[in-house]
Amino acid sequence: MREGLYIGIDLGGTNIKAGIVDSQGNVLKKISVPTGHGPDAVIANMVSAANRAVDQAGVNIDQIAAIGIASPGSLSKSTGVVIRCANLPGWDSVPLCDLVSKALGKPTIMENDARAAAFGECMAGAGRAGTIRNMIMITLGTGVGSGMILDGQLVHGHTGMAGEIGHSIVVSEGELCGCGQRGCLEAYASASRVHRRAIQVLQNSKATSSLRNLAFKTGSPTARDVAEHARRGDTLALNIWDETCKFIAVGCVNAAHLMDPEIIVLGGGLAAAGKLLLDSVERHFREQYWKIEPPRAEIRIAEVGNDAGFIGAALLAGKVVAPLQLRRRAEMATDAIEVARHGHSVPTSKL
Amino acid sequence: MREGLYIGIDLGGTNIKAGIVDSQGNVLKKISVPTGHGPDAVIANMVSAANRAVDQAGVNIDQIAAIGIASPGSLSKSTGVVIRCANLPGWDSVPLCDLVSKALGKPTIMENDARAAAFGECMAGAGRAGTIRNMIMITLGTGVGSGMILDGQLVHGHTGMAGEIGHSIVVSEGELCGCGQRGCLEAYASASRVHRRAIQVLQNSKATSSLRNLAFKTGSPTARDVAEHARRGDTLALNIWDETCKFIAVGCVNAAHLMDPEIIVLGGGLAAAGKLLLDSVERHFREQYWKIEPPRAEIRIAEVGNDAGFIGAALLAGKVVAPLQLRRRAEMATDAIEVARHGHSVPTSKL
Repeated sequence: MREGLYIGIDLGGTNIKAGIVDSQGNVLKKISVPTGHGPDAVIANMVSAANRAVDQAGVNIDQIAAIGIASPGSLSKSTGVVIRCANLPGWDSVPLCDLVSKALGKPTIMENDARAAAFGECMAGAGRAGTIRNMIMITLGTGVGSGMILDGQLVHGHTGMAGEIGHSIVVSEGELCGCGQRGCLEAYASASRVHRRAIQVLQNSKATSSLRNLAFKTGSPTARDVAEHARRGDTLALNIWDETCKFIAVGCVNAAHLMDPEIIVLGGGLAAAGKLLLDSVERHFREQYWKIEPPRAEIRIAEVGNDAGFIGAALLAGKVVAPLQLRRRAEMATDAIEVARHGHSVPTSKL
Repeated sequence: MREGLYIGIDLGGTNIKAGIVDSQGNVLKKISVPTGHGPDAVIANMVSAANRAVDQAGVNIDQIAAIGIASPGSLSKSTGVVIRCANLPGWDSVPLCDLVSKALGKPTIMENDARAAAFGECMAGAGRAGTIRNMIMITLGTGVGSGMILDGQLVHGHTGMAGEIGHSIVVSEGELCGCGQRGCLEAYASASRVHRRAIQVLQNSKATSSLRNLAFKTGSPTARDVAEHARRGDTLALNIWDETCKFIAVGCVNAAHLMDPEIIVLGGGLAAAGKLLLDSVERHFREQYWKIEPPRAEIRIAEVGNDAGFIGAALLAGKVVAPLQLRRRAEMATDAIEVARHGHSVPTSKL
């Protein structure tokens, strides 16, 4: 029987992903279901997705050592509570870990979703099985976030909020961000800003562009549309894309100087553009980087993609429970020796 | 006899400071001497300053457990070599630790000066005896640097270059910095920029200002002059100071979002302005910080000041050698037991 398996659950605003993961970060089976509404329904969906993943992976629940949840929102990791979450309406101090742990009968831990994804990438993707000990993963989606591993440790900060690179100011007194600050990286480099920039440029210019042929609908053109048309050589789309990459590169320059990572990993929706993103960000990175010496950090595209969150959460669960399991085994061994010696057990705490 | 004392040496471009420091960060004696020129002379000055500090502290060299050096420049910490240094002409791959260690007969370690100072502040100043486990100290001098302690650990990064907050971009395509990048924090928030901004404003405006009464000389008005005249209510000086503080606050906003520190400590030359600096930076910090919730980080002025470098280096030396000493003591105890048992010693490695 294969031992040391973990369930990773990525709780997203739209979908829940649950996967069975081994201690090397290999995924035996994964399930994706709609998130649903309200804590009760959502947690029931998480538990059902986890159970289905266990069944379909053909493993026994006894083989599962622990559960890790990648959660958005403001978390209390020590108590396993989701304090609140913009993407999960109605969640107010929900004891998520306790509820999932009771339903599935396993020790359960949680981690911020961007941080879990960075850990997943570090252990199972761009981080080469965790051999890279200094990395930052910048997640370029609707918002811009990051997870950092420094000197081999996931960085949390004093209140668990470390990594908000999207709200570092890159244009003093610049554009207003959704957070109320001016000049945030997120206000220039997120997928939503690619969309908004495209709308503005299309409205304010007469230039021909294949983007004008897209059916009119809310949210169009998307960042994906812009990337696709840029790839096909549309000049206007290329300019919008390039402008975005210039700002992403500012984020990379700042991360490089402040953290001195070995690699900067670009993840999230925009990273689906692959080489189109990497080439342009790399070029702007080198152009904007100081001239004292060449950059020491390498920029890479995330390899694990959307699975990084649940894989990272599962591996973090393993990291937490493995020492506990070892101690429990040592206690059991000590008990067995005591029973053999004295015919009865001595509480380990008295030894 | 007092045991566990350390020598801390801060190697600066102008002065060398050497101090005798106990394991709590208390300074028994400190000495400051001019740095001198060329590796040989400089190292001789370091050794002589250290010896004088030992003598004047009235301690025996046997009480010194180790030496820590706070050094500028590009360092190889593992080999104890100063690879090169802009402020120390003629230094090219100097095995500083080996040379000092041989001259003083003690294990010697080195640390980047900004990082050593941050550690000193954390352990003996604003960090409340190291109880604060997440802090960043931003050093506002001729340049702008930082040292970070995250989750209780000094952050080094992949190549030991972490903390270059002065070269994070805060104004995309902004002013040219000495490093060749545009829009660096250092190009807006260093003491040199206060001086340069003052010259520009004085030349380009007809406004009356007490700064105009200063004797004309190179480097005047200094950042200290500007602070002093601002304190006395000179409007023009106040405006220059305030503009500088606005950019320092951008650095604080970015550090807060990226690191989530408990405290942000302002050190270096500009910090001598104390409350004048703190009040203005705090106000701009709150104004520019996102509106989702109030800032979680507290901004403080450095408490240890210019001694933080050698104190931090000394305490870091203690951190490195203390476990080695414990192991050595354990080995000696084991040897003693073996001798008592068998009449001869068994190499510890064979146990």
